[in-house]
This record gives sequence, C-alpha cells and structure tokens, in this order.
Amino acid sequence: MNEYLNTLKERFTSHVKNLQNQITTRMQSLDSNIELNEDLWNRQDHYGNDGGGGITRAFKGKIFENAGVNTSVVYGKINPDFAQKLQGSGDELWATGISLIIHPFNPRVPTVHANFRMIHQGDKCWFGGGADLTPFYPHEEDFHYFHNVWKKACEPYGLYPEMKKTCDEYFVNHHRGGEMRGIGGIFFDHYNSGDLEKDFNMVVDISNHFIESYFPIVEKRINEKFTDDDVDFQLHRHGRYVEFNLLHDRGTLFGLKTNGRTDSILISLPHRCNFSYQYAPKEGSVHHKMMDYYFPKEW
Amino acid sequence: MNEYLNTLKERFTSHVKNLQNQITTRMQSLDSNIELNEDLWNRQDHYGNDGGGGITRAFKGKIFENAGVNTSVVYGKINPDFAQKLQGSGDELWATGISLIIHPFNPRVPTVHANFRMIHQGDKCWFGGGADLTPFYPHEEDFHYFHNVWKKACEPYGLYPEMKKTCDEYFVNHHRGGEMRGIGGIFFDHYNSGDLEKDFNMVVDISNHFIESYFPIVEKRINEKFTDDDVDFQLHRHGRYVEFNLLHDRGTLFGLKTNGRTDSILISLPHRCNFSYQYAPKEGSVHHKMMDYYFPKEW
Repeated sequence: MNEYLNTLKERFTSHVKNLQNQITTRMQSLDSNIELNEDLWNRQDHYGNDGGGGITRAFKGKIFENAGVNTSVVYGKINPDFAQKLQGSGDELWATGISLIIHPFNPRVPTVHANFRMIHQGDKCWFGGGADLTPFYPHEEDFHYFHNVWKKACEPYGLYPEMKKTCDEYFVNHHRGGEMRGIGGIFFDHYNSGDLEKDFNMVVDISNHFIESYFPIVEKRINEKFTDDDVDFQLHRHGRYVEFNLLHDRGTLFGLKTNGRTDSILISLPHRCNFSYQYAPKEGSVHHKMMDYYFPKEW
Repeated sequence: MNEYLNTLKERFTSHVKNLQNQITTRMQSLDSNIELNEDLWNRQDHYGNDGGGGITRAFKGKIFENAGVNTSVVYGKINPDFAQKLQGSGDELWATGISLIIHPFNPRVPTVHANFRMIHQGDKCWFGGGADLTPFYPHEEDFHYFHNVWKKACEPYGLYPEMKKTCDEYFVNHHRGGEMRGIGGIFFDHYNSGDLEKDFNMVVDISNHFIESYFPIVEKRINEKFTDDDVDFQLHRHGRYVEFNLLHDRGTLFGLKTNGRTDSILISLPHRCNFSYQYAPKEGSVHHKMMDYYFPKEW
C-alpha cells in the first residue's frame, strides 16, 4: 500500500504542476504582455522540520488584471490537537494541490476560482476541490456553458448533483440574505469512496476540465465593450467577493489562522473593490437582472 | 438602584444622540453638500418581541467620501447560551452606544473610528469604547495632537496608559506581521470599577473629546494637494482596513453572527480599496516612512 500511495502522491504532484503550467501558458497566450511574478517558498512543520513548500504565480495583466495560480506540496507533523480534528490517524499530514483565481479587467469577462487537492493522514487519504464562476454581466449562455462543462466532467461518476448542490451551499454570503458570491459550479470536500485509485483518477479527470470550462468564455467576451455602470457593478461585486473570502471561506481562514503564507492566500482578493452603504444596482438595469443569478438555479 | 439605573440609561441614550447630532453638524459644516442618508431601524429580541433599534446615518461627500455615524438602543431577551458568556446575570440585555467611522477622500486627511457604549445585564453594568486614527501620510504632528487629546481626556482617571496599550494590542492585523490598521488611540472594554456613577461620568467625559481629537486635523489638511502615489497608498491601506474589520474586529463579527443589520455594520468599510500581491510602498518614499507608524509607539 505505502509504495503505491507514494506513487499516487508523486503522480498527483506532477499533475497539479502540469496543470499550473498549462493554465499559465494559456493565460500568457491570451494576455501577451502579462507580468508573471513567481515565488518559490518553503515552510517548516510544527516542530521546525522541513515541511515542503509551494510555487506561487502572481499575474498582473491587461486582460487578467490580477490572478494567482498556485501549487503547493506540504508535509510533516502538525499540531496534535488539530490533527485529532481531521479524518485520519496520527499527526503527520501530506497535502498537495492547485489553487487558482483569475480576476479579469473587463467586467464582461467573469472571475473564476478553482482548486483541487489530495490529502493523506495516517490511515486515510481524501480529495477536495471544485470550480466556481463569478460573472458580472448576465450572459446567460456563458453560465450554461460553464455549468455544462462541469456537468459533463462529473456525470460519469454520478456525482454532479451532489457537487453542484455543495457548491451552491458553500459560496454564500449568509450576512447578505443568502446571496452567493457568483453563480456556483462544483465543490467537494473530504471525498473518499474507499477506492483510492478510482478517486485519484476521477479528481485528475475532473480537474482536467478547468481550461475548457473557462478560457473559451474569456475568448468570446474579451473584446466586448463595457460601460462605467458595468465597472461600478463589477467593483461592488468584488467587494462582496472580499466579504465572502474574509468572513466565510474555510480555506482562507484556516490558512491565516495556521500561519500560512498570507500573500499566497490573499492573492484571491480582486485588485479593485468598492463598498457602499446599501449598494444596489438600478431597478430594471442589466445589473439588477444579474442579481437573480446569484441564487441557486438548475442549469 | 433600579430607578437610578434607569435615569443613567436615559441620560446615556440622550448623550450618544446629542453626540451623533454634534458630529453630524460638524461634518455638514465642513462638507457643505454632503449627502446624508438617515435610516431608522427596529429589531426584535430573541423571542420576537420589541428589541429596540437605531439611527444609522450614512454620509457621502466630497471631503468625507463615506462615513457612518450610528447610534442604537437595543434591549430585550437574548439567546440564553450567549447570555451565559457575558458578564452579568440573566438573559435580559440592554445596550446603548454610538459608533462612527469617517473615511475622507483626500489621503492627507486621516480616517477615524470611535465608539462608546453602555451595557446592562442583570446585576452588572459596564462600559466600552475608544477612538483610533488611521492616517495615510506621515504628518507626525497630527499624530501627536490626536494622541495628546486622548491622553488629556483619560489622564484624570489614571487610565490612559492602559487604554492606549489595549488599543495598540487590539487593532492589529496579526496575519500581516503584527501591523496595526492605523496608529492607535484608546480602547477599553468591560469597564466597571464598581462605582457606576463615576464610570458613567468618565465615559461621557471621555467621549466628549472626540470632536476636538479629530476635526481640527481635518481642517488643517483639507486643502492639502495630494499625488497619485498618495492615493495608491491610501487605497492599499483601505484594503488592510477591510482585512482587519472582516477578519479580526470582534464587534463586526459579533454583529454579523448575531443577525445584526449588515448595512449598518459594514458601513465601516472604506468606499474604494485595493489589494495587490505583496504590496509594499517604494523604499525611501513618504509612504514607506508611514509604515513605521503602524507599530506601537509612545507619543
């Protein structure tokens, strides 16, 4: 088992790094002068020993105003109290994943977030991840497209309805009347069917759909003209994005509370945001219409 | 005791409403066309009975880009589990206070926050509050001025060193290397010396120094020219302000988790914010110098 598990861990690590490179290449081909700032970082485990590290890629461009496409491979001993709260046995944790967020400049192009991770602790191995879209303009055909790519990706495993529902329930600003931060997508956590190889292949397969789910939408909308009202709406929705990430997102709060690398975690925040007292788009406007999409729907 | 307490409660309520009016008047006289949006709201207590309410005043102006000057008088039964965690006996709570935040447009004029509250639960009565400044430009003489007003205000009670230290320790972005959100001021919580009348008079007296602590600084800096770099620094520090309020501020998190009025709570967020990966002002710039002031100092 151990040797086989080690092979899978290596394969997952290669997989997320490949995906990171593929996404990087695609972004660079769309936004030719994009600035890429790559930081390699290391961490220590709970007792100060080698605990792995990561590759943070921060982007600043004309099309992709700010983005982060990060991978990490972390391992070593963790706080024993914290270890007890997790799924597996012992206080040795191994976790590898890719986590990305892309905030385009043009409000007609949606923001996207995705992450896929494999975790091993003692006698257990599990997976988590998902992808969700945050558009600012009611291009309904794009929303169908995004959801359908993920539906197609998850359907062979019979997990689409569950993953879609989990996503709708997760990315919610509870303090804003249950409004989602975007239009959802898929989300799964602590996934372990009992068949490690099957789970591994499934997560690799699903994550390989990210590029197809997002970049065709970017290509379609990239040259669309936008108005000042579009920007105003986008920046206020960026504000809501910040509220979700800092108030509700488990990954963000967990990362910050366990002394994670702050800059790599908060790379998720959009560059420009607005907050206004009782902000609401004008009645009858396209942005007012957009608000309806921030509640769960069948696609 | 009860009748006397009721008199003090009424007097505290009048006091915070007077202060709200005085601050409103001062803001209107400085920013002549400022838009004022006043909302009166009511709440229900834990069992759906009358639970008091508040007066939210949201400002939008040329000098004061966005601001909130709010008062509330809330009362009634609270969740019994939550009641047990508080200082007093029983599940009946009464709380009155003023809470304000002012975000000027010009980065040479500092942001300010203050609040003062009186709370009664069963056998206990206590006070809390404070004021803190968030400047974006190293006008050191203004910092001396602000701190000295509060020093003078608190000194007769022998509490300045403690209140100053509590403030330095409270408004901290722990996930940003212990950087404060601003330059501090004073802060106190659960204050109860055992002499209710003395405490009452002290808090009224201290809170009456707010106008003197802040508006002369505004008047001095209001016409100062500013640069694009000043704005860039201000907006990134606004981002840090948002991080503090949403990640660390007990009042904000408590309010949102107990179903408080979201718009009145998040009125504290600055209108325009920026977030950038590994943001840092240029070495040698005035803004780089400003960073030093975000760590505790003796004034």
